[in-house]
Amino acid sequence: TTKKVLMLPGDGIGPEVMRQVQRVMDWMAKKRSVNFEITEGLIGGASIDAHKNPLTDETLADAMAADAVLLGAVGGPKWDDMPFDIKPERGLLKIRKEMGLFANLRPALVFDALVGASTLKEDVVKGLDIMILRELTGGIYFGQPRGIEERDGVRHGFNTLVYSEPEVERIARVAFDMAMKRNKRLCSVDKANVLESTVLWREVVERVAKDFPEVELSHMYVDNAAMQLVRNPKQFDVMVTTNMFGDILSDCAAMLTGSLGMLPSASLGAADANGARKALYEPVHGSAPDIAGQDIANPLATILSFAMMLRYSFDMGDDATLIEDAVQNVLKGGLRTADIMQPGMAKVSTTVMGESLISE
Amino acid sequence: TTKKVLMLPGDGIGPEVMRQVQRVMDWMAKKRSVNFEITEGLIGGASIDAHKNPLTDETLADAMAADAVLLGAVGGPKWDDMPFDIKPERGLLKIRKEMGLFANLRPALVFDALVGASTLKEDVVKGLDIMILRELTGGIYFGQPRGIEERDGVRHGFNTLVYSEPEVERIARVAFDMAMKRNKRLCSVDKANVLESTVLWREVVERVAKDFPEVELSHMYVDNAAMQLVRNPKQFDVMVTTNMFGDILSDCAAMLTGSLGMLPSASLGAADANGARKALYEPVHGSAPDIAGQDIANPLATILSFAMMLRYSFDMGDDATLIEDAVQNVLKGGLRTADIMQPGMAKVSTTVMGESLISE
Ligand SMILES: CC(C)[C@H](C(=O)O)[C@@H](O)C(=O)O
Ligand SMILES: CC(C)[C@H](C(=O)O)[C@@H](O)C(=O)O
Repeated sequence: TTKKVLMLPGDGIGPEVMRQVQRVMDWMAKKRSVNFEITEGLIGGASIDAHKNPLTDETLADAMAADAVLLGAVGGPKWDDMPFDIKPERGLLKIRKEMGLFANLRPALVFDALVGASTLKEDVVKGLDIMILRELTGGIYFGQPRGIEERDGVRHGFNTLVYSEPEVERIARVAFDMAMKRNKRLCSVDKANVLESTVLWREVVERVAKDFPEVELSHMYVDNAAMQLVRNPKQFDVMVTTNMFGDILSDCAAMLTGSLGMLPSASLGAADANGARKALYEPVHGSAPDIAGQDIANPLATILSFAMMLRYSFDMGDDATLIEDAVQNVLKGGLRTADIMQPGMAKVSTTVMGESLISE
Repeated sequence: TTKKVLMLPGDGIGPEVMRQVQRVMDWMAKKRSVNFEITEGLIGGASIDAHKNPLTDETLADAMAADAVLLGAVGGPKWDDMPFDIKPERGLLKIRKEMGLFANLRPALVFDALVGASTLKEDVVKGLDIMILRELTGGIYFGQPRGIEERDGVRHGFNTLVYSEPEVERIARVAFDMAMKRNKRLCSVDKANVLESTVLWREVVERVAKDFPEVELSHMYVDNAAMQLVRNPKQFDVMVTTNMFGDILSDCAAMLTGSLGMLPSASLGAADANGARKALYEPVHGSAPDIAGQDIANPLATILSFAMMLRYSFDMGDDATLIEDAVQNVLKGGLRTADIMQPGMAKVSTTVMGESLISE
């Protein structure tokens, strides 16, 4: 069967890292006889430039029709001064919301060969392997009412943090499922001592826990979670949290690894009657406009995002592992793009990194 | 003139660390002829036990009448299962709000003698000295509406993040003042690409900046700030942010130092006609119920909070420096409480640490 993939290279280094994924896909088509039907589309700044709109109805329709979407990165200084409503970020938030991608999987993984890249001491981060589940279509990102308005002559800016029981339940279920596939430990992060919205969050997570008696569940306040990630990140296996807390904590966790250019992510929707989920995969790093077009960006995070696609959208776990092993081996072989360069290693371009991965 | 100080030891290790401050105050009264008029009060769990209320009107009245309040710590497992509305935390949030303590000063400082205690590499944190200004009486902590309610048969939990222009302006002014007294660099942290409330925040900070042309102002999104704190914390001098973001980032920054037991904080209100501000000082660490009553807790964070009181409430900067230098010297001399113990150093009790500080 054909696998329909929509590629959205986006802005900055997006297109050039995407080209390396394309080569990996070509290789897989040939060597593993997988049939990818690839369409390309615009998102973010690239779409603003072409259509004055960071996400057109057409691209959205293509995304809805695809089996999986692979995104490069969006944004850049060129569009920084645009009004709030038509910035590149709007495209990203809209595609997440419209596709119903409520479960954002953000692994924080330290590759053995790159442990030295972390600002943390080696023993604190060696072997680190955390999976953060961030709720992605609710919470304060999308809550109504929101805006800026005058009240009694004074301007107020306001947003609403809101979660319903079903919203919490579905992300909690994904988190428990994930914990079952890993080390059966789940930490739910909230601020239940201050925010009623997360009192409800904690209550629902507790209830879902009854269906997963094997999983050891703990709760942690978000301020403490930020501390514990720095103090002893290896205490965590799977973490689950709200959209806003997940935005902050997953970036903090990503930086603990010291190699942002290596980290993939997946955003998944609900399973339909056939067990299929809408899904979008993207590297954690941004569009890095300062190095765009120079063939020096690290393509591995996007390639690893593609590996996540194979695992989560196409049930091709073996092929995903093949790619992940190839990444480990290329690193062991001493090849490095500039962002992860270390003394004594060989600095290579985006293209050479892609080629070497395919040889591997 | 007499300085009226209200001491609120609170729960857990609060009372025992507070006793060491009391000795420092006695010493100052004798040797530096400062007149402290000290009252004691209950807050948090201790107040719940005595009055079924984490903050009584009486304690609040004492706090309003005092020139400064020194707090130990609140909370503990004993009160964890209490209803949301009468938990120990309520006492803390209420005293902040009622006293109008909108400016929370949270230094993250690495003491040379303790640089090894950090989980981060020495060169990343040596000499670290950040001041985080957290807005403390607004934002999502206090915004209305809030609660849990049924809508169309589905339970929703909700909170409101709201800031008015004057609220942002007053914390911004404190931040710029602070930057002027330090290295003239201020980073304002928001999520202006997603939250309208922080679009207003950024706008107001920009406006206040016009009155401080010497200060170099930058803006950073909160997720990036969490990353940058881990990647290269020394890039920051003064940071200013919302109540919720400040809660998370200041704890993250505190943990970068590796020695929570050393970090003080101050919470200040608006200046009255005489330039006096309501003020509350407290260590960053919690009540640590697991080690309470064993005379092993580190009293230095509370003693340093008292030093902040001397500086910010009583304009006694020299005496504050005297205490801060004594802390440095005691550490250089090799004394350590258990939480900051290192090989080759002398492990001492809470009491001995207090005594040694006074000898110093
Ligand atoms: C670009 C921005 C809107 C986005 C977010 O806050 O979700 C980004 O930070 C992310 O984590 O994917
Ligand atoms: C105890 C809690 C309510 C409090 C807060 O969130 O403000 C604490 O974490 C702090 O930072 O002082």
